[in-house]
Order: sequence, then C-alpha cells, then structure tokens
Amino acid sequence: MDVGRLSVPRLARVRIGVVGGGQLARMMIPAAIQLGLELEVLAETEDSSARLAATAVGDTMDLDTVLAFARGVDVLTFDHEHVPQPVLAALVAAGVTVRPGPAALQYAQDKLLMRAKLSELGFPVPDWAPVATADELRAFLDDHGGTAILKTARGGYDGKGVRVVRDAAEAADWIAGAAAGGPPLLVEEAVGFTRELAQQVARRPGGEIAVYPLVESVQRDGVCAEVIAPAPHAGRSAQAAARIATGIAEALGVTGMLAVELFETDDERILVNELAMRPHNSGHWSIEGAVTSQFEQHLRAVADLPLGTPDAREPWTVMVNLLGGPAAGTLDSARRRALGDQPGAAVHLYGKSPRPGRKIGHVTVTGADLDDVVYRARAAAAPFA
Amino acid sequence: MDVGRLSVPRLARVRIGVVGGGQLARMMIPAAIQLGLELEVLAETEDSSARLAATAVGDTMDLDTVLAFARGVDVLTFDHEHVPQPVLAALVAAGVTVRPGPAALQYAQDKLLMRAKLSELGFPVPDWAPVATADELRAFLDDHGGTAILKTARGGYDGKGVRVVRDAAEAADWIAGAAAGGPPLLVEEAVGFTRELAQQVARRPGGEIAVYPLVESVQRDGVCAEVIAPAPHAGRSAQAAARIATGIAEALGVTGMLAVELFETDDERILVNELAMRPHNSGHWSIEGAVTSQFEQHLRAVADLPLGTPDAREPWTVMVNLLGGPAAGTLDSARRRALGDQPGAAVHLYGKSPRPGRKIGHVTVTGADLDDVVYRARAAAAPFA
Repeated sequence: MDVGRLSVPRLARVRIGVVGGGQLARMMIPAAIQLGLELEVLAETEDSSARLAATAVGDTMDLDTVLAFARGVDVLTFDHEHVPQPVLAALVAAGVTVRPGPAALQYAQDKLLMRAKLSELGFPVPDWAPVATADELRAFLDDHGGTAILKTARGGYDGKGVRVVRDAAEAADWIAGAAAGGPPLLVEEAVGFTRELAQQVARRPGGEIAVYPLVESVQRDGVCAEVIAPAPHAGRSAQAAARIATGIAEALGVTGMLAVELFETDDERILVNELAMRPHNSGHWSIEGAVTSQFEQHLRAVADLPLGTPDAREPWTVMVNLLGGPAAGTLDSARRRALGDQPGAAVHLYGKSPRPGRKIGHVTVTGADLDDVVYRARAAAAPFA
Repeated sequence: MDVGRLSVPRLARVRIGVVGGGQLARMMIPAAIQLGLELEVLAETEDSSARLAATAVGDTMDLDTVLAFARGVDVLTFDHEHVPQPVLAALVAAGVTVRPGPAALQYAQDKLLMRAKLSELGFPVPDWAPVATADELRAFLDDHGGTAILKTARGGYDGKGVRVVRDAAEAADWIAGAAAGGPPLLVEEAVGFTRELAQQVARRPGGEIAVYPLVESVQRDGVCAEVIAPAPHAGRSAQAAARIATGIAEALGVTGMLAVELFETDDERILVNELAMRPHNSGHWSIEGAVTSQFEQHLRAVADLPLGTPDAREPWTVMVNLLGGPAAGTLDSARRRALGDQPGAAVHLYGKSPRPGRKIGHVTVTGADLDDVVYRARAAAAPFA
C-alpha cells in the first residue's frame, strides 16, 4: 500500500505553503506555475525575494503566525530550517502536514544531533566531540594535531558559526557564550580534504527516491562560489556519495530534497560535512542542467507526486553565485552587460538589493566542453563582481 | 546610436506590464522571476491563468482601464492581440511605451491588412482577395478550382473565423454579417500543403534579431495539437522560413516575439499563413528545448535587453497540447498519472478548469531519438485526454 498518498487531500488545487520568503521559495514559484500547484509563501518582510507568491508576512519563528498560515494549505514546507522544534511539534499536533517533518529536520537544525545520529548509524563523518569547556577543547586539539574546527550546533550558515582553532584560549568567547545559554558547541577534526562535493536526493513520503548527479562545490571564504555538475573525475566517490545520501534520507525519514555536503579527502575517503533538507545552493545548476530541477522535485516530493528524472541534460553544467553585487553601476546595467556578453547563459537574479557578501543571484551555463562552460559562466558572472 | 535603449528608464527594477491574463502571461512569470524583472498583469478575471502576477483585473479593451494599468509600468506588452487600435493609439499618445507597437500589431490583428501588406512587400502568401459580396466570392471560387478558404479579417483564432467554401451561397450568413458592420471578409486559395510549419524570431527595438529553429506544427480540427522542433527534413524550407520571418519582423518593425505560421506546399513552396506578435503555442517547446525560451526572449526584447541564444538544446523536442481535460477523473489524478508514467516529461498546467477543446496545458519531452521523444510526449499527454 502506498501510505504516502493517503495524506494529500485529492483537491483539484494542491496548495503548498512555504515558510520563509528567500530565494529558495522564489525559485519554487516557476516550478509551481509549471505543474499547476498553488504555492503560498509566509515571508519575513513585505519586500522578500519570494514576494510574488507571498500570501502572508510575519515572524516565521512564531507559532501563531505559522499556524494561521498553515491552516490554508495542504502541506507545509520550508525555505530555511530555522523554524524552532517546539513550533514544528505544535504544527504537527495541530494536524498540519509538515514535510520534511520535525523528526528529520532536527538533524539539519542541530549539528550536534546530526553528528551523533550519523555516527550512531555508521555514516562516515570527521572525528568530532561536543565541547563545553576549554579543557575539552584542549584535549581534542591535542588528539588531532593541534588544529580543529569549532562550530556552534545551531544558527550557522555560509561560514558563520564556524572557526578554525589552534588554541583553546582563542575560543573563550564562544565557550562562555555556550555556558551562558547560547548554542552549544562541537569540535571537529580539520579534515585534509581535496575538494568539497555535494550529493542531492529527493524522497517522497512513501519512500520513492531520486538521486541527482554528484557535484563539486567550490567554496571561497566559507561560501559556495561555483558548482560543477557532475563532479569531474568522481569515479568511486560518486557511488559512495549516492549510497550515503540515499541511506541518510531513508534512515532519517527525510521528505523533499536532501543535500549532503561532503569532503573528499586526500586519502580518497568521503566524509559528511553538513545536511540541508530543502533545495540547496549546490543544486541551482539543476534548473537548466537536469531534466527535473531541484525546485520542481522538492514540490513533487512534498506534495507526494511521482518524482521526476534527476539526470543531467548535458555533459557539463556550471553554476556561479553572484555575491554582493556590482562594484560599479547598477544591478540593471550589470544584468544588461551579462546578457549581452553571454547570450547562452541563464542569469538568475533574486530580487534582492546588493550588499557585501549577499547572494543576490547566480548564473548557469551548460555545454559539452567543461573549460568552455566554466569560462562562459564566469564571464556571465563578471559584471556583477 | 542605439535608439531603442533610450526608451527604457534605467530603474533598478524594470516593470513590464502584460495586457491579458492567459497562459502566455502565466508562462512569462517564470522568465521574469529568473531575470529579476517585475511583471504585472492586467487580467480579465480574478481567476485568470496568470493570477499570481495579476496586479489589476478589468476590461483589457477599455482605454481607461488599460491606461491606468500602463501608468505603473515601464513597458506594456500583450498576452493576446485583441486590444483595439484606437486604445493602442491613445496609449502611445499618452506616452506609454507599447511593444509591439500598434503600427506593427495591426498586421497581427487584421488578416486583410496583413495579406495586403505582405503582398505589397513581396512575401509569399496564398492567392487571396477581399470579399464583400457573393459575386466576388463566386468569381474567386471560379478562378481557384471551386474550393477556397473564407476568413473573417478580425477575431478568429484556433480555427474560429475560418471556413472552407465550395459555393458562394454557403457563405451568405458571413457576407450578411460583414455588410451589417461585422468584421470584413477575405478569401484565400485552398493551398495544397504537405504540412504546417512555424518560424519564430525575436526582435529588439534597436533591430537585434534572434532566429529560432523552424518547427513543424501538427494541427487537428484547426487547433495546434503537436509541435516538433526542429521541423524534420526541413532543408531549404528552414532557410526560406528564417529569411521570411526576419524580413517580416524588420519590415513591420515588430518588437518582441513574432511567430510566422507557414504552409509547406506539395511543390516545395513556403507560404505565410498567419502572424502572431507575442509568444505563441508553436514556441512552447522552447521552455525546455531552447537555450532561451520564447517567454524569456519576449521579455528581453520588450524590455530592450540583449537577446538570448535561441538554439535548440537537444536534437529533438516534442510538445503536445492538452486540450479539454481528462474524460474521467480529476485534473489532479491525471497529473499524478502523467508524472508517474513519464518521469522525464515536463508537464505544464495553466491553472484552468477543463472544458471541451480548451487548452489547459501542454507537455514537452526532449531527446536524441525522435520516435522515442514523440512516444513519450504522447504518453505523458494521454492521461489528460
């Protein structure tokens, strides 16, 4: 019996509610338009990136606000993983269909829970330990060559909430913060990795899974700068990554898109870095590059519709993030120049004002020759730098 | 000097207004979201296909309504060509940037004007004549083997406003209607054609043109049923069609997308059937099948942004229209079945209620083997029949 099917009402119009009005919600809109699904967004601000589909504006951390929004939709999903567990639990208790559910989502919200769970399940992770005191940090540093990565369990993203430590004294402020009721800390070995990879899968409530090609994610200053799909010369790593991501999706009961960020080490191991249970920056390439984009796939999965083919459409796809905005001139003139210079590039802007380091868009190029595709993608991004 | 550029204000946000809330306006929304353009739609009804972007609801034939809408946007374009010339002229007089402009649009609105203009310019058209009396029709029938195609100059689409006549007496009602102030009539030779083709081009105000691959349009009961891109075995026709469409776009000063519907005759001639100055059903394949979709291209052209590459992304793309809706079950169950049966198909629904003969969506499949692509596209459409 296909249990998953029972939970979506058989309405002529399936209404999907998205909590959060960022660019991920924005990029779900075209997929919803295509499939004839009704998308409603609870946005944080009037001028959110997903304002076109915003049917409510309010505090996405507040139960009453989210609950009022959720009552008008058939299934609730997310632009981000910041909705607190007590709010999620109350939504479920009120009968709201939440996908991914809180039991899965907690592992994308809390790195301590995630590390503990993945270790328990036997998935490959860096050496790690919870840290509450300088002594504990010192002991870990001593055991791991004197360098380690300290992280806050919650609230980190794009390089925030992560720092390299070589001496326990450096971390006194964070340790004091955790002791004072701030997010708890964990420490991880500084993995000697060759590159970062990302593996996405989609999972329906009933268990159907679609596995995307493994991609390489090029980071700069802790932020994803470029993605190459598929990851060049991945070989055994591709199979290992697919196995890991599928296993995690099943073990944690994820519904919707799951992104597993991975380290590929000098000694050919694959280690899990982070999890995200929503469309992810490492999957933006799929809008043009895959038969079914991650945004369409996420909507299909959370609406419990059959999944689409995740395969690549062309030999290579390269995505370059637009960070910050043009140093000179307006966004309008940068767009004009990018479109003129690279007529084959897909230029995506998120309707956000430029601000240093802010992701304001991305560009994607597909083709048969990787060097050419990389060149053209960077050229299309150049006017925005 | 690039004259076209002067007329688009250099705003951070370029606002494009679309008159009409049908599926063409709907499918412009994803392109606007991608490019970071603001799309506003003047829809005929609250529940229009493009309701997500509708900022106004009203009579798109009414000057005051359209003018009030146009004052809030930087450039005005169209979902359909039904806005009357006096309204268009008044908009231009009021300083509204209208693309395509009324001088071009009149040839997509009035078949008599179109035939006369194309004949004057030397483009290949079927033999034709204006018809006001039964005697005139009889004379044309006598000269053309006793069979001809009678058309109303205005208001026809999808097989409406077109009939085959073999005797002038058959047309007495239409002739009386025209005499009583209805749309005037024209008669055309019944072209012995092998198949119908469609050639799309996009043109920017400054003159830049992008030429799409020639496609074959398979009609059933006067309505487009399937499109194959590129048109198989087109050979010389492809070059002729590109030359004709480019020439028409330039001669008429079209801005935005132009679709030229063509007959390919038994004796290897290409004749112009109809013109449309907007995205067109024959170009829906381009959403997945071309580097730049016709919807993105139309927005680029009317916003006077550089045009994108119009080339096909894969050897074959087939689009099948969904007409009417499922004979049994709901649209939701048909969608579920289509997605499940054909995970590689792009299923597009227009947010419209099923009704006999109504275009409620389309499906698109791309690939390397035409037979396989046709099979899969038809299989994906089957649950909706």
